[in-house]
Amino acid sequence: MLIECIPNVSEGRRPEIVSAMADAIRRVAGVRLLDFSSDASHNRSVFTLAGDPVGVEQAVLALVERAVADLDLRTHHGEHPRMGAVDVVPFVPIEGATMADCVALAKKTGAAIADRFHVPVYLYEEASANPARKNLEDIRRGEFEGLAAKMATAGWAPDYGPAAPHPTAGAMVVGARMALIAYNINLATNRLDVAKKIAAAIRHSSGGFRYVKAAGFMLADRGIVQVSMNLTNYEKTPIARVFETVKREAARHGVAILESEIVGLVPSAALTAAAEFYLQIEGFKADQVLENKLRQP
Amino acid sequence: MLIECIPNVSEGRRPEIVSAMADAIRRVAGVRLLDFSSDASHNRSVFTLAGDPVGVEQAVLALVERAVADLDLRTHHGEHPRMGAVDVVPFVPIEGATMADCVALAKKTGAAIADRFHVPVYLYEEASANPARKNLEDIRRGEFEGLAAKMATAGWAPDYGPAAPHPTAGAMVVGARMALIAYNINLATNRLDVAKKIAAAIRHSSGGFRYVKAAGFMLADRGIVQVSMNLTNYEKTPIARVFETVKREAARHGVAILESEIVGLVPSAALTAAAEFYLQIEGFKADQVLENKLRQP
Repeated sequence: MLIECIPNVSEGRRPEIVSAMADAIRRVAGVRLLDFSSDASHNRSVFTLAGDPVGVEQAVLALVERAVADLDLRTHHGEHPRMGAVDVVPFVPIEGATMADCVALAKKTGAAIADRFHVPVYLYEEASANPARKNLEDIRRGEFEGLAAKMATAGWAPDYGPAAPHPTAGAMVVGARMALIAYNINLATNRLDVAKKIAAAIRHSSGGFRYVKAAGFMLADRGIVQVSMNLTNYEKTPIARVFETVKREAARHGVAILESEIVGLVPSAALTAAAEFYLQIEGFKADQVLENKLRQP
Repeated sequence: MLIECIPNVSEGRRPEIVSAMADAIRRVAGVRLLDFSSDASHNRSVFTLAGDPVGVEQAVLALVERAVADLDLRTHHGEHPRMGAVDVVPFVPIEGATMADCVALAKKTGAAIADRFHVPVYLYEEASANPARKNLEDIRRGEFEGLAAKMATAGWAPDYGPAAPHPTAGAMVVGARMALIAYNINLATNRLDVAKKIAAAIRHSSGGFRYVKAAGFMLADRGIVQVSMNLTNYEKTPIARVFETVKREAARHGVAILESEIVGLVPSAALTAAAEFYLQIEGFKADQVLENKLRQP
């Protein structure tokens, strides 16, 4: 069973601190650090790791240990909102893992963080049963500076750990969600209004698909426009459906699709689903993919 | 580096002999037996295994050892043409392996079979530099019964091993080829003539795509017809191109595609390529597939 985890840490300006965190993850057996990157203006780093549930939990605990020791939110400044030293820890199902597995791992890891480091932990997304505490932005609103006051109000006791913030590490948000796909479609036009209209048509916030976030941008150097998207649940809102809708909306303005691009990683199943859709494949099973068959226990 | 191998063995009627062969493969480290099946009327069994080059070579040698010990082509009868105890051994590139890797492995394994078991070995397909000896059917023509006479004629000295057949095991054909995809498209009609016309339009033998074999069939129980295909090189003749051509040819007869099906295994890259085609994805790299990234060394 493979689970992915993408911890976001509130440190993006001191490479030696971030490297020590990466090393702490690499020392854990049963887990692999796939990538990490820092953003100085956000003063934030993102780690991508994957492995079996035990390995992933141990790697997160090793990362939290370093972050609690090395970071002090009282002196942390950056453009990105944050309320904890390790700010948010999503677990994502990959091969052979279900969302239920990730919810269970989020709860187990959250409890362990609170227990070992005395940091309050909030569950979010699929791991949270509380509708008011599913959305990360809702939980983080007020940030580290407003945390003590927020935690003292009704409805904001943490899921695990002390009822007040850790003095330097704040509070952490741990949960489970589907893999996120960063997906852009470039249009064969320089008309920014078309990209913005299409983005509005497909995104959830303005009446579009439930699991799409989208915005229209100009790519000035190429003289074209882009519909830039995050697909937050590729099973319920598949790539092919989004692509076809963008194509149809563009055609209504006399515009063609120039190309699309996947930024970063994409689960194999998301691309297989697109092939199944277009090729009208019936009765296909994941273990017909040769590489999946090879990896079966 | 992963290489697939699909040895065909001239025994399909004695399950205990075939099971002993499967066990011999399973005992080899670094290789996995994915599947095996026997056909009594063909009197032939097909094994599918995959692993690293060393493991795959050792597994083939273990299989040949059992076949040379247990089979006698002088008393073998079946519908399928054959000239050896292990009749044909294709190596197929999967993850991180190239065709050149498979050609090298075919030559190494072929030489080892000839050396250890005194069986003549012919190279075929990509492993053969001789245009007259690329096609399996050309090499096998005359079968076991005609082999001694054929080997005595000009141009039919084997690539490895003795100049005459092994008395009971005949000769073996070893080579390298692309993965074969068994792919069927069902049409929303009962008109067999339409399926046959489309099959003729797309198959290589009658002017169609270079790497397509196709025939039209009636699926009597469902009252529909099928274009049944083997795609022998999904990189050079991709699934999406075949599907779109069948769709266009069917439309010319007023017929729609009902569905398609992939029979058995398909390499992940063949489906990813279809997704890239339809979604117009530019600049995509195989290591953007999360599962591929996880398996990188």
